[in-house]
Amino acid sequence: MHHERIRRPGLAQRVVSADEAATLIRDGMTVGMSGFTRAGDCKAVPLALAERAARDPLKISLLTGASLGNDIDKILAEADVIARRMPFQADPTLRRKINAGEVMFVDQHLSETVEQLRGRQLPPVDIAVVEATAITEQGGIVPTTSVGNSASFAILAEKIIVEINLKMPTALEGLHDIYIPTYRPHRLPIPLIAPEQRIGVPYIPVDPEKIAAIVITDKADSPSNVLPPDAETRAIAGHLDDFLRNEVRHGRLPLSLQPLQAGIGTIANSVLHGLIDSQFSNLKMYSEVLQDSTIELIDAGKLSFASASSITLSAPLYERVLADIERYKQHLILRPQEISNHPEVIRRLGLITINTALECDIYGNVNSTHVGGTHMMNGIGGSGDFARNAHLSVFVTKSIAKNGDISSIVPFVAHVDHTEHDVDLIVTEQGLADLRGLAPRERAKLIIERCVHPIYRDAMRDYFRDACKRGGQTPHILEEAIAWHTRYRDTGTMRSVTASSAAA
Amino acid sequence: MHHERIRRPGLAQRVVSADEAATLIRDGMTVGMSGFTRAGDCKAVPLALAERAARDPLKISLLTGASLGNDIDKILAEADVIARRMPFQADPTLRRKINAGEVMFVDQHLSETVEQLRGRQLPPVDIAVVEATAITEQGGIVPTTSVGNSASFAILAEKIIVEINLKMPTALEGLHDIYIPTYRPHRLPIPLIAPEQRIGVPYIPVDPEKIAAIVITDKADSPSNVLPPDAETRAIAGHLDDFLRNEVRHGRLPLSLQPLQAGIGTIANSVLHGLIDSQFSNLKMYSEVLQDSTIELIDAGKLSFASASSITLSAPLYERVLADIERYKQHLILRPQEISNHPEVIRRLGLITINTALECDIYGNVNSTHVGGTHMMNGIGGSGDFARNAHLSVFVTKSIAKNGDISSIVPFVAHVDHTEHDVDLIVTEQGLADLRGLAPRERAKLIIERCVHPIYRDAMRDYFRDACKRGGQTPHILEEAIAWHTRYRDTGTMRSVTASSAAA
Repeated sequence: MHHERIRRPGLAQRVVSADEAATLIRDGMTVGMSGFTRAGDCKAVPLALAERAARDPLKISLLTGASLGNDIDKILAEADVIARRMPFQADPTLRRKINAGEVMFVDQHLSETVEQLRGRQLPPVDIAVVEATAITEQGGIVPTTSVGNSASFAILAEKIIVEINLKMPTALEGLHDIYIPTYRPHRLPIPLIAPEQRIGVPYIPVDPEKIAAIVITDKADSPSNVLPPDAETRAIAGHLDDFLRNEVRHGRLPLSLQPLQAGIGTIANSVLHGLIDSQFSNLKMYSEVLQDSTIELIDAGKLSFASASSITLSAPLYERVLADIERYKQHLILRPQEISNHPEVIRRLGLITINTALECDIYGNVNSTHVGGTHMMNGIGGSGDFARNAHLSVFVTKSIAKNGDISSIVPFVAHVDHTEHDVDLIVTEQGLADLRGLAPRERAKLIIERCVHPIYRDAMRDYFRDACKRGGQTPHILEEAIAWHTRYRDTGTMRSVTASSAAA
Repeated sequence: MHHERIRRPGLAQRVVSADEAATLIRDGMTVGMSGFTRAGDCKAVPLALAERAARDPLKISLLTGASLGNDIDKILAEADVIARRMPFQADPTLRRKINAGEVMFVDQHLSETVEQLRGRQLPPVDIAVVEATAITEQGGIVPTTSVGNSASFAILAEKIIVEINLKMPTALEGLHDIYIPTYRPHRLPIPLIAPEQRIGVPYIPVDPEKIAAIVITDKADSPSNVLPPDAETRAIAGHLDDFLRNEVRHGRLPLSLQPLQAGIGTIANSVLHGLIDSQFSNLKMYSEVLQDSTIELIDAGKLSFASASSITLSAPLYERVLADIERYKQHLILRPQEISNHPEVIRRLGLITINTALECDIYGNVNSTHVGGTHMMNGIGGSGDFARNAHLSVFVTKSIAKNGDISSIVPFVAHVDHTEHDVDLIVTEQGLADLRGLAPRERAKLIIERCVHPIYRDAMRDYFRDACKRGGQTPHILEEAIAWHTRYRDTGTMRSVTASSAAA
């Protein structure tokens, strides 16, 4: 049974039901599961665990690559299974529990989790639960649509449960490149010098004796939920395209640009989508997640290669890619997120990184995570890995939200994920602020004039003018700056009486 | 004349007065000068430039490695020569002009300035002014007590002025290791895998035709101004020593630890000083600046090797090291700050980094730069390069300042340089908070109970309790949090009436 999927002799005998496999997970354990931005998550064992918890309550620390699909975080959260969660999530139910203080959420740079596990700075992973396309003759685990943290989880864990997903074409084998940094104190340079380079092996090398159970599944990944481009996201793409063309014209970038990274989500996806009609060619990506736009750029002949840790597509593109995977494999590599997001490689390659800001301030500090400064949305994800080490760190956002009741650009962000040092460009549908080499007061003028929505521009100019009277490298009137956030909380809009009448 | 100092045939004819050399610097130029934490700055040309500006006003953009000694930033600021300054400074006069908005100060991660110059993301350096021990037969420039950004400034500039400082022993030659990353898109891994490894050449390789003027000087570096350890800094060192011993006991660190970095300043210096009496041995440093404590650790036989970008010592240790430089050279390397602070190397080596917080908050966010959230102190320096990529990122601070009118730990820092993601330990004289793997609410409890001064502890507990009632991943009552800063501004103390009476 499943000879081409379980090729290691003897391992087929470890095939069990999901319920039976889930019994290996016990109360208090740290569990490392596959899954990165809805791709390659385990489809059966988490559900069996939630069902069991209804009869026999238990709590675990759940580590993954990033967010899960198939409502797994929701189901586990509702079953009260998750005591602790890291390094990323994106589920509304789990989010509520996190913000209520019921689940301890450790929001981490995505490149760092396995580094901390390896250095024993986090409690050890007791068991890894990993979705696979196949198990090789040597017992190597071939991942599916994401690598995430699965490789290190499997290597470091005492036991491994493998979910073989029959929905995943066997031709996925060869897509992955698994490289694990050598251990300190004798760590060597990561030899990667180009996105298309292979430096590892196409499977996760583990001792097959650790594979304690194998479960057969047959369920697709959740499709991505990004929205199509709209007028604002097209305007953002247009501003960035103008900027990049100007960089090329001045000889600061080649026509193939430098490798691109784009964060998950609608705006970053739309910006990449906009490159289809650009003059650039022979583009490459070195990113953490590949979205629809990547496939469309490959099909348009614009993008020659894309490296990432996962592929998260809409249902039609998912079909298209899986059906023609042999061809797409020539343009794609999936790597551990430690490598896709590694500071060493990002800085070496000189990436152009495009990430989404939840809000940013007039000096260029960015909040990627905390609504109102307090409530977690999803997590910082890889945005810090990329923005800090980028050649060109771009943050995009629409200038307003909630029909104009929120200005995405505020005097002072209520939570900082990226400091002004790590932000080169801010782009809204209003325009683009090129902050490179500028002091904070210069940055503020540019952001206010180029990026702030007209309904907030006068109020922002007034704020900045008054703040400058108080002086400082980064002028502020803290109590007035914070009032923008408290006004929204108390009145439902950031607009003051004056500002709204001016807009009316 | 100076045959052993100017060995390149023909170059001796370019020796001129400082006044004459300074005429090469013209209004509007971008000037890159040597100097890093008071070490290896140019002693004559900047003063000649300031004198000339009194007769003939001019403005320049001044780039350095880091801070300058010999009051150079003061003298240039008073002469109104500096229009723009990056990436770091530490002079009170210049600071006043920066905070008044008269000088545009670009506060940068110290590893990034030359990366941005090379990528032409900053205006080009017109002229480099570099202190040297000697010029080799091939025209290579041998630096003095710092490398800083001098190598890339000299390589990228159109012209170079060299100051040969006769006060610097010729035996400094061989101390330096100059390695410049290869240019993108063909950049290779930086081959450094141990602090003591040499990967470059012991001089700055330049086209000798670019050396437009040579000036002879004879003036020492300014001595460091760090204070000796006191009861509080000894307590901080003690807490960290206890922690590290526990890590060794649990097998998470070897007895030689992992390479150490310590930021400039009294507290970090004292913490390193505390290692003299520790059980650790065969320590190594991979840091940006070496202070007195480094030399004392070498002399005590505790530290076998130290790599950095500069040496900044008190007057007695400066004497001792220069007099015996041949011996100390066996334990020391000075590198470009791009390499001493490079994310790639820091992450690879797995550093234990110790940096000073100006203030930090109950969730572990750190302000390193802005007094009251608005006024620049010195700059972020290399703290971000190190903290982000460290194996163990430690921030130290005394729990109170200004006789208790300031709590160095606040509910919400008024400026963020390092986010909670980049801070593993916070240590005050009160105790140590190990934040690894903890969620924000857990971090807050630990920081309040371990690190906050008793006169502020009750108020901080009250704040956190009330904030938790509002909920969130990172609970806050923003207006109350900011009131700690406005109260200090308006009343001269962060203590509220209740808190001060409780303390009385």
